[in-house]
Amino acid sequence: MNMITPKNLSGFMELSPKDQILFERIKQTLEETYGLYGFYPIDTPVLERSEILLAKTGGDTEKQIYRFSKGDTDMAMRFDLTVPLAKYVAKNYSDLTFPFKRFQIGKVYRGERAQQGRFREFYQADIDIIGDGELSVLNDAEVPSIMYQVFTRLGLSDFTIRLNNRKVLNGLFELYGIQERAADVMRVLDKLEKIGADQVKEELAKLEVTAEAADELLGLLNFQGNSKEILEKLKTFGGRSEKLDLGVSELSDVLYYMEKFGVPEKNFRVDLTIARGLDYYTGTVYETTFNRHPEIGSICSGGRYDNLAEFYTKKKLPGVGMSIGLTRLFYILNEFNYLNRSVAFPADVLVIPMTEDMTSAVEISAQLRASGIRAQIYFEKKKFKHKIGYADKLSIPYALFLGEDELRENKVTLKKLLASEDDAAKQVTVALEEAIAEIRRGTEALLGGKSIQL
Amino acid sequence: MNMITPKNLSGFMELSPKDQILFERIKQTLEETYGLYGFYPIDTPVLERSEILLAKTGGDTEKQIYRFSKGDTDMAMRFDLTVPLAKYVAKNYSDLTFPFKRFQIGKVYRGERAQQGRFREFYQADIDIIGDGELSVLNDAEVPSIMYQVFTRLGLSDFTIRLNNRKVLNGLFELYGIQERAADVMRVLDKLEKIGADQVKEELAKLEVTAEAADELLGLLNFQGNSKEILEKLKTFGGRSEKLDLGVSELSDVLYYMEKFGVPEKNFRVDLTIARGLDYYTGTVYETTFNRHPEIGSICSGGRYDNLAEFYTKKKLPGVGMSIGLTRLFYILNEFNYLNRSVAFPADVLVIPMTEDMTSAVEISAQLRASGIRAQIYFEKKKFKHKIGYADKLSIPYALFLGEDELRENKVTLKKLLASEDDAAKQVTVALEEAIAEIRRGTEALLGGKSIQL
Repeated sequence: MNMITPKNLSGFMELSPKDQILFERIKQTLEETYGLYGFYPIDTPVLERSEILLAKTGGDTEKQIYRFSKGDTDMAMRFDLTVPLAKYVAKNYSDLTFPFKRFQIGKVYRGERAQQGRFREFYQADIDIIGDGELSVLNDAEVPSIMYQVFTRLGLSDFTIRLNNRKVLNGLFELYGIQERAADVMRVLDKLEKIGADQVKEELAKLEVTAEAADELLGLLNFQGNSKEILEKLKTFGGRSEKLDLGVSELSDVLYYMEKFGVPEKNFRVDLTIARGLDYYTGTVYETTFNRHPEIGSICSGGRYDNLAEFYTKKKLPGVGMSIGLTRLFYILNEFNYLNRSVAFPADVLVIPMTEDMTSAVEISAQLRASGIRAQIYFEKKKFKHKIGYADKLSIPYALFLGEDELRENKVTLKKLLASEDDAAKQVTVALEEAIAEIRRGTEALLGGKSIQL
Repeated sequence: MNMITPKNLSGFMELSPKDQILFERIKQTLEETYGLYGFYPIDTPVLERSEILLAKTGGDTEKQIYRFSKGDTDMAMRFDLTVPLAKYVAKNYSDLTFPFKRFQIGKVYRGERAQQGRFREFYQADIDIIGDGELSVLNDAEVPSIMYQVFTRLGLSDFTIRLNNRKVLNGLFELYGIQERAADVMRVLDKLEKIGADQVKEELAKLEVTAEAADELLGLLNFQGNSKEILEKLKTFGGRSEKLDLGVSELSDVLYYMEKFGVPEKNFRVDLTIARGLDYYTGTVYETTFNRHPEIGSICSGGRYDNLAEFYTKKKLPGVGMSIGLTRLFYILNEFNYLNRSVAFPADVLVIPMTEDMTSAVEISAQLRASGIRAQIYFEKKKFKHKIGYADKLSIPYALFLGEDELRENKVTLKKLLASEDDAAKQVTVALEEAIAEIRRGTEALLGGKSIQL
């Protein structure tokens, strides 16, 4: 028979069993944390009608989308979780209660050019709060506070959630009468760090931005200070533009309440250079960076939008949300060796029967599991060394031996496999209850650590 | 702007937020139970090279598969989790440790004719144990025992795991010299219940099965008795076929050890009419039925196979596994109203600020969450009735009011919303710690029940 080489499509992450344990643990922390804030879990199809996914055209979407026909149906694989959310909310509008708080962790698909650390199939982990007609700005403070909790529970501490408000920049643009060239102006301003203030001013002049306006804009964006100082600086523009004033007021509220939500000052700050997608976000915008690895770019972004589902319904559905690119984040953490590998074992104990008959091994394992201990039994007929080698390779922390002697005395022999030097080869023959207590103690110590060690 | 109707592709399940909570809870029970037996979680791509998925041709697979090209690449969406497992094991053979125990819960795709209760995108929940060269028959007892645990933990009790061994029937076929017509003979025998013994004998005669062989076969398949009696009956064939004897011995071991694994007698039995896919399974085979709803067919099936990955590697990789069609199972449980809806609430408490300033609401919610309580805050400016209505619609069991009085006295007012008649409108103003204790007590009572009530 001709063999087919078992290889994957490029750009599709597939983890080793141990890495998968780490990934699932991170995913679980996200689910639990989102759940603590009362968000509903939602699951939408991976495949949708192409007209749904491509309602909003433009950008790279159409080039990158996996689209095909089956029968008469033109369908495509989702490329994010926002469009499916928009469809979901429009479709179920009359059955939903607003504000609608949902999270979704699922795979999305983008046929991008394959390159290291970029994936064509990847998990996104989104939270959004959708209002019906209106939505309090308090939600703009809650969303990044949830993400702060997520990262903290994962074990990250050295990160910064950067905040801006689109109304601030848009207000300024209106003030200078350049709102129609906003996209171009933003593009130039975005180059500030790269090309310096002088060259930026030159390019702004070409866009018919007055020298005075350019100075004010650059003065703001270049301003070095903490969030409060930036707010003070912004307030000096007060009374010149209603939009700008509203943006400053929203930004101020978000900062105030994020602190009340328990986010420490060091983990968030105003960054007026953040704009995000120009045609979507209308208020607060977020980006999150690792302080130690700014080169990675944002690991969690989002913002406030006015109309979630304008292509599917005439209802005005404002919302605010953030998204973690989970597959890429995992890849990075793994590359930098920040993952806590001490939790990557699939069972707490390997039960090793030393007799032909396995009745006791099976019964004792049932008791272990009834006590919440993850137990595997080694059923295969192999040499003893091979059995212990199996536990070692899987990093299972305990082995439990059942030989003639143990069975006769109604005891078990427990060996700690991941023992430190001084209790190496520690092996005790004890009652099952004692073994259970020791396995529980040792396992909890191993599993107690956070997923990320940074 | 032209609106696009927000509708789904037919055959794609998309749940309401409350139903999604129920689904996630069931999925979590599966993950936890598989985990108790030390199985690794695995996640493989939804998209694979078509040559990988279609290595084994035939059947409906090619017609039903979602297959397309992007660039030069011919790819397709997985239609089960077994082929991706085979690819995974062959691809990672040298990095894996055997026996390799893995579970996978994921979506698969089959473009079947759409009909009520049939889905084109559906979750499968698989467990498999793969050996390297050989694999003890004890594993054939462990796998259905795990599934017994899964169903029991979900709340099902009225189900039967039916067992057979392909070597038993194949041994008999060899004995009668009809092994080459095995598929046809099985098809005829399968009609036994429908058309009766006489007509089956007539059709068997056409397949050149001798009258004596037909009598013996029908005598066995028609034999009424419990598992032990069926085994006794099978043993009367002893010594006539090595394969048959081996099958009976394996079946006997599986039955013996399943009992030791704690599966009660009423939940499993030998059923010699079960054959499953003829060209794949080689030993033990399983089907699982709801006793109350035999019309549904099997809700969890599988078996033992000799060569998991024969299309991708020359290694002999025998395995045993079972699969639950989770989406269909959920659909059925929902249709029959067997789901425990009392757990379908996204938050334990709704915090309702009664003042303009929400500082205390935000701070108190942070304390609630730190105590493990799932808390939502109602931020919107709405009438009181609307706020309480929100909690009602989401079935949130508690509301916590924070008015001027409460804030001054450093207390909270807690109202149980899902109150029974006698403690209806029960509302107390207490210290936060007391409120936390009450919310925890009330919520645990609601969440303590199993997912399925049958």
